[in-house]
Amino acid sequence: MTSADDLGSPAELAARLGFTLDTAQVEAMREAVAVAEPATARLRVRPVPAADADPARGDAWLRPDLPAGRDSRDIGSHRPVGAPSVAEALARLEKVHAELNCTIEFLHERATAMAAESGRRIADGTARPLEGVPFAVKDVIDVSGVRTTAASRTRRAAPPALESATVVARLEAAGAIPISKDATTEFAVGGPHPPLTGACRNPWDPQRWAGGSSTGTAAAVASRAVPFGLGTDVGGSIRLPAAWCGLTGLKPTAGAIPRTGVVPLSWTTETVGPIARDARTIALLFALLRGPDGRDPRVGELPPFTPEENPADLRGLRIAVPGGYLTELCDASVRDGVTHLVDVLVDAGAEIVPGEIPSAEQALPIGYQLVFAEAASLHRIDADRWSEYDPVTVRRISQGITTPALDHLRALQFRVELQAELDAVFAGADLIVVPTTPATAPRLPDCTVRIDGEEYPLYAAQSRSTMLGNLTGAPGLALPTGFAPDGCPVSAQLIAPPHHEAVALRAAQLFQDRTEHHLRTPPMVERPGSPPR
Amino acid sequence: MTSADDLGSPAELAARLGFTLDTAQVEAMREAVAVAEPATARLRVRPVPAADADPARGDAWLRPDLPAGRDSRDIGSHRPVGAPSVAEALARLEKVHAELNCTIEFLHERATAMAAESGRRIADGTARPLEGVPFAVKDVIDVSGVRTTAASRTRRAAPPALESATVVARLEAAGAIPISKDATTEFAVGGPHPPLTGACRNPWDPQRWAGGSSTGTAAAVASRAVPFGLGTDVGGSIRLPAAWCGLTGLKPTAGAIPRTGVVPLSWTTETVGPIARDARTIALLFALLRGPDGRDPRVGELPPFTPEENPADLRGLRIAVPGGYLTELCDASVRDGVTHLVDVLVDAGAEIVPGEIPSAEQALPIGYQLVFAEAASLHRIDADRWSEYDPVTVRRISQGITTPALDHLRALQFRVELQAELDAVFAGADLIVVPTTPATAPRLPDCTVRIDGEEYPLYAAQSRSTMLGNLTGAPGLALPTGFAPDGCPVSAQLIAPPHHEAVALRAAQLFQDRTEHHLRTPPMVERPGSPPR
Repeated sequence: MTSADDLGSPAELAARLGFTLDTAQVEAMREAVAVAEPATARLRVRPVPAADADPARGDAWLRPDLPAGRDSRDIGSHRPVGAPSVAEALARLEKVHAELNCTIEFLHERATAMAAESGRRIADGTARPLEGVPFAVKDVIDVSGVRTTAASRTRRAAPPALESATVVARLEAAGAIPISKDATTEFAVGGPHPPLTGACRNPWDPQRWAGGSSTGTAAAVASRAVPFGLGTDVGGSIRLPAAWCGLTGLKPTAGAIPRTGVVPLSWTTETVGPIARDARTIALLFALLRGPDGRDPRVGELPPFTPEENPADLRGLRIAVPGGYLTELCDASVRDGVTHLVDVLVDAGAEIVPGEIPSAEQALPIGYQLVFAEAASLHRIDADRWSEYDPVTVRRISQGITTPALDHLRALQFRVELQAELDAVFAGADLIVVPTTPATAPRLPDCTVRIDGEEYPLYAAQSRSTMLGNLTGAPGLALPTGFAPDGCPVSAQLIAPPHHEAVALRAAQLFQDRTEHHLRTPPMVERPGSPPR
Repeated sequence: MTSADDLGSPAELAARLGFTLDTAQVEAMREAVAVAEPATARLRVRPVPAADADPARGDAWLRPDLPAGRDSRDIGSHRPVGAPSVAEALARLEKVHAELNCTIEFLHERATAMAAESGRRIADGTARPLEGVPFAVKDVIDVSGVRTTAASRTRRAAPPALESATVVARLEAAGAIPISKDATTEFAVGGPHPPLTGACRNPWDPQRWAGGSSTGTAAAVASRAVPFGLGTDVGGSIRLPAAWCGLTGLKPTAGAIPRTGVVPLSWTTETVGPIARDARTIALLFALLRGPDGRDPRVGELPPFTPEENPADLRGLRIAVPGGYLTELCDASVRDGVTHLVDVLVDAGAEIVPGEIPSAEQALPIGYQLVFAEAASLHRIDADRWSEYDPVTVRRISQGITTPALDHLRALQFRVELQAELDAVFAGADLIVVPTTPATAPRLPDCTVRIDGEEYPLYAAQSRSTMLGNLTGAPGLALPTGFAPDGCPVSAQLIAPPHHEAVALRAAQLFQDRTEHHLRTPPMVERPGSPPR
């Protein structure tokens, strides 16, 4: 048998590339590849002129178009609303966890020691901007001295992280204190029921999922245990749980926030970002988190971040509200929320301009293709332990084993085409407004998504308008726009050009200054006998 | 048949990905893949820790470590030695071509018109630094108004280029005048006998090949028709013909010289650069050619280039002379040339320091793997015309069709490992000295390489020490170090850290100030009845 013959079957290919898969895993992989094939096939026949074919154009698009400036660490006078003490936060989170299963590890000892130090600083007048404010950390992000499980049985006995991720270190340097490692889907890519922990429930309706993959982080913030948390997003994993938990969440521009110390899933699409109640807190956190750390190779010098703290109006702001694929499969409640947001923005002076993204439909399958190939590549290091993985993880990322390099390169070329479509919209618009996700939170245990009464598979529906931002690298801000008849929050997403997060934050702040959706609390918070706020 | 079953054979895979290959082409592809497999297999089992796995680290390595500065366009007082007029150059090149088959198209009309304009400028005192100096252009580089064939039958009737490549435009802006589109291997990757033109002979011995793929350019410069020319290099294609034609050739740092307007072959590894007789001319040209053009996405702002024009000595210069794979297969004459170069450098004050590159052996096969996947991706646009290609082109680049994305990503990760090995050497050394290629010019027609009397296949031998620079992106300067008993030139390569071309040029200038190898002319130039000089 020559090596070329080893291409013979997906199983042989997997073995040749170093993976140990059983028959069921191979069959799941074959099925997943077959489902993904049509989108890839469509792309293959679309020619790319050689002069435009360099995938590096996709990275070039993400280079700031403004000169690098002093990286703003001035976070102004804003402090997160109603931040509890570390002790209060831990106590509350324990009760919330008992109801929702949102926490993988509580950082009692570590956080309490830091709180004591914070107390000293407050006493002696050397308090930092976020002194003593507790926060939650998705358990794919390192906190020094604490094991990072990524919700995987394979990391149950992982050694403690030697140092904190850049994002954690930066918040700690501002005085904030991590109190928890939060539930997630396995490696931020598995199913809603990771074998290590089981599903995390939604504070708005414990019969529903909190959304993935920054699952527990969103649940902890929404249930008011902490004022904010850190998540990651490769296909919507910050914005989806933010949407389903009534929160504000930012997927930043790719390359704006360092991912050093974060369990990687996909280099091209993955970002780290904050989840909070309001856009003002998000702006504060983004100012602290952004900028190069000298270690993440994708983060270069950035222009200054200059968020407008108190926008009085939005005169001059042009917003595009594309239709087509991005809205055609969308629950009426979500659609109403988008309209409501647009109405408020227009009332504040914004102008609606035309803008469509013709290839938006391809973003989801091609984005997944890129993610799974990169994820499979990363997980080759544990290729003999996939039997311990969540079967959903295996089903999804094993697709990447079969991806030919030419399809991978074509996906990176498609990224450039999609960026060009965004450029065309942004030539006449400052922001794009789309639904964050088509429906309210998925019901446990199956987690299909219900749109106008009909059920759709989770992965085909949830990321319809979020993957666009991951594939292109454009920033997206999810914010609550109201509530559906089922009592659950709905959400819209503001998409800005790369490194123009401030524009989205300005519009969101104004919207939140004029509405109260982001202030509503889930029933469990108000219930008699509920955990103390 | 499900799509996953379509992986079934290389032929089915090729068809699924959009390529039209006949049985013989598929068989050649299978054989080529089988030959390449062991090196890839070795890499697959070498684990990559997730924290270091981002292929973007390879691009980060190439970012200048010095602040961007005013891009130096001051080329000093140096003018290329003995530059003929455009008319003289054209006349001489026609005679040389008759002997060597080095030219695909003469630019009589275009060059003559430019020469008239140059004459006016010289007369009215507005002459530019290279006013009226003729040069040769490898026929994968666009010259406005002229068809670019890339030595392919498929481009015989290509429309004229609408604009010149950035490199051509920059030399023209300095007053230089392109007079020819030069022979190359097909698409700079095919065999020595492209069906469109046939082989290009070597000025030192017309029974030998001039080397590839900047074949005709080197022949034109070596035969003294022009003082310099422009080539491209993805695996040694500037340095090899420079070596075999007794010339000085620079493969610049990846990302130093824009490739806009060059028929692409491989985005990661390809570079454009100058071939001339001496290092001083190379420095002059490099100063003119480098720096961003706003279009090549891989070229960013650069630090100033500050070549030392007249190095008096080399005190303080540390040179590493690695052994192992880089020298173990090497003709005695080539080895003697390296020793001679090192002796002269040490005599001038340089110090020999230890430095080895343990993974150098993997650079060639893994570099080819990367090149062929990228090339196959680029040539998918003509996937139904491969029957018109040189069979060697098809045999080589079709390998890329079968490359899994995971192997492609692993190759990019290996690039980072290799860069780290160079970093380790450059921590204690300023330059690395290696043979450019193991032997003197290959004999036509078979083009095997003869090393100490034994024959080796061209592709396995020629690029042993050049691909290292393409895969990592480090710059390499090939310069003549003497002559073998067969009368043909031998060459050594100076490898510098990224963006430190000036260090290699300084050493080369000093060597050339103290020796005369670069001044020797091929017998055909001296022969009675030879073309006028």
